[in-house]
Amino acid sequence: MNDLLKGMRVVEASAFIAAPYAGLVMGQMGADVIRIDPVGGGLDYRRWPVTAAGRSLYWASLNKGKRSIALNVRNGEGREIAQALMTQPGDGNGIVLSNLPARGWLDYQALKAKRDDLIMINITGNRDGSVALDYTVNAAAGFPFVTGPEHYDRPVNHVMPVWDVVAAMSAVQGILVSERHRRGTGAGQFVQIALSDTAFATLSHLGFIAEVQVNGDARPRAGNHVYGTYGQDFETADARRVMVTAFTERHWQALVEATGTAEKMRQVESLFDLDLKKEENRFAARETITAVLRPWFAGRPLANIRAALNASGACWGPYQTFAQAIAEDPRVSAANPMFEEIEQPGIGRFLAAGCMLDFSGASRGSVKPAPILGQHTDEVLAEVLGLSSAKIGALHDAGIVGGPME
Amino acid sequence: MNDLLKGMRVVEASAFIAAPYAGLVMGQMGADVIRIDPVGGGLDYRRWPVTAAGRSLYWASLNKGKRSIALNVRNGEGREIAQALMTQPGDGNGIVLSNLPARGWLDYQALKAKRDDLIMINITGNRDGSVALDYTVNAAAGFPFVTGPEHYDRPVNHVMPVWDVVAAMSAVQGILVSERHRRGTGAGQFVQIALSDTAFATLSHLGFIAEVQVNGDARPRAGNHVYGTYGQDFETADARRVMVTAFTERHWQALVEATGTAEKMRQVESLFDLDLKKEENRFAARETITAVLRPWFAGRPLANIRAALNASGACWGPYQTFAQAIAEDPRVSAANPMFEEIEQPGIGRFLAAGCMLDFSGASRGSVKPAPILGQHTDEVLAEVLGLSSAKIGALHDAGIVGGPME
Repeated sequence: MNDLLKGMRVVEASAFIAAPYAGLVMGQMGADVIRIDPVGGGLDYRRWPVTAAGRSLYWASLNKGKRSIALNVRNGEGREIAQALMTQPGDGNGIVLSNLPARGWLDYQALKAKRDDLIMINITGNRDGSVALDYTVNAAAGFPFVTGPEHYDRPVNHVMPVWDVVAAMSAVQGILVSERHRRGTGAGQFVQIALSDTAFATLSHLGFIAEVQVNGDARPRAGNHVYGTYGQDFETADARRVMVTAFTERHWQALVEATGTAEKMRQVESLFDLDLKKEENRFAARETITAVLRPWFAGRPLANIRAALNASGACWGPYQTFAQAIAEDPRVSAANPMFEEIEQPGIGRFLAAGCMLDFSGASRGSVKPAPILGQHTDEVLAEVLGLSSAKIGALHDAGIVGGPME
Repeated sequence: MNDLLKGMRVVEASAFIAAPYAGLVMGQMGADVIRIDPVGGGLDYRRWPVTAAGRSLYWASLNKGKRSIALNVRNGEGREIAQALMTQPGDGNGIVLSNLPARGWLDYQALKAKRDDLIMINITGNRDGSVALDYTVNAAAGFPFVTGPEHYDRPVNHVMPVWDVVAAMSAVQGILVSERHRRGTGAGQFVQIALSDTAFATLSHLGFIAEVQVNGDARPRAGNHVYGTYGQDFETADARRVMVTAFTERHWQALVEATGTAEKMRQVESLFDLDLKKEENRFAARETITAVLRPWFAGRPLANIRAALNASGACWGPYQTFAQAIAEDPRVSAANPMFEEIEQPGIGRFLAAGCMLDFSGASRGSVKPAPILGQHTDEVLAEVLGLSSAKIGALHDAGIVGGPME
């Protein structure tokens, strides 16, 4: 974590991906992120993948560098502690991040009554508060019908939870913009983001809505082709696969040069009376272009293809399984300054990413492991709320707070 | 656009998705975003989808609400104008956003020499400056091998350019954090983001790396199932499809209740000696659960399924094509305050999204259409740089600036 947001504290009440991912991003830029969980863990505490011993690799990965407090908010005193953490005075305090329903102990008005300039970011499923998750939102957004093999007639779900991550990134923006505004005006605010809106806004921003409304139709399923330009996957002689694209004239020329297909491509241009320097023509002739290129890829192992395409400056990349990416790709290793091998208590060593952004004005710092559930219960109660050891002990005895839990 | 970032100016030098998307997000929160393009348009100016008249719906959708200046930066004077825009004095100025190579007119050190506290965000393909696009990054990240039909043996590309959007959202964070830091310390900085790092960091944050390194294996392709819990798509009696999930015990009970399968599910529990209240057991028994549920979905039209699942509070959603989402879903309509129908000059009317975030302390304002290329050339030269009409006329005559271009 770098220290750019040092002095800012975010109290996170969350589950699953969107809010935890946002808290992770804030923490990796220096904010003190305190995650509140129920004693014994919340809905996502044992989410797969898990180790043989049942420890969640998902939870550990999403909560790197946070402080964890375990708290029973069904108890009145537990709720008071949670609200006191969220509404502490001080410039850096008073920032709440949640994807749980904003009611009960997370009711904005109740919190605002305790700190008028509170900033609260709430991620919901739908705008009306009804439930929606990444998988149901993606189904509604249209992508499953244009993803997958060209003649397949069923929807294809994504595996990467895109909308959760976009909502998370948006939530971070919401915190930063609101905190900037609060410093300028003294006013806090309640910021809402619906997961479904992140998908539907993206449909607008990338032109999918205009395409239907203006052109009266939408693109068909095009397999691994890239719509409107040239992009295609190929199998290599050693049974690997590569993705090759040529969005620009320069990338197209590099591809033609590396594969020695200049004369063949002139014949394709003549055959269809098309100038292949234009990307829309490469899309129109994509099947033929692919047929011309395929033998070159099929006749060479990945290593030779890599050398030739890199030498010409083509825009391509190998397909990799998760395991291949980790085993073979230096970008996914400690050679990349973004990564560091961490020791995660109860789990072991693995490679973990810090902040995606490199700031010239801030050192990267180290990547911190996730807490054990409730690891910082006592520390947070003492440091942030000033509770005495005796009081903290009594809260433990009453089951109002918990942890650390192995 | 709301006005939370009013007074902040971002000069964008960009093409394709990541930087334009970031500029769009900044503009929709009130920043004055000035996009610089070559006279006649850049690499992405005619990117598909296009209208019958060849106007890019993609370009129009990604540049909503920006100001456009057309400038020949291969000319020395053109380059000076670009750099003057980027390094203007004033608190809100001196912020550059680009996904073009940071050299020549976009060299950070050269710009910093003109304004020492410059903030420059540069999005690259790979960290070492080599080329990578969303499609080649996604191939390398592992997702294509776990996406798609369960027994399909080839990679399945995503259609939604996830990493471009994540990099865009990260770039916005980079601007906001750097500007906060500059106001505190007076120091600017150069912020770099590699598209490939956004993917590999996400592999870490979502537990995919730990899964391989700690457990020694990775999840298999699981079709439209959701890994580690229950999620499945079903066909309806009217040939629609729905996605149904049950991550939590509550969602599972709602699904069982709506479908009237409580007794059958007890038989499944007995058959496999599993407690289906636990999500990992629902994943283990997913094929059988699906077989039990399928007749209920196959026997009802979507409308009846919708009513029953909503009544019980199940977590589900219909699959929709892009066209169906726009035609049928009130979330993708002007009934959603995020959306507004706009008139885009040269293109026509379509539904466009504003900011995904709802701030209680700021009015949403209206959604602005994209500029025509070079629409604001004269306005920006006069207002920001204080050039005279005569000077601006001479720049047009010399072909150093251009626009507006229909």
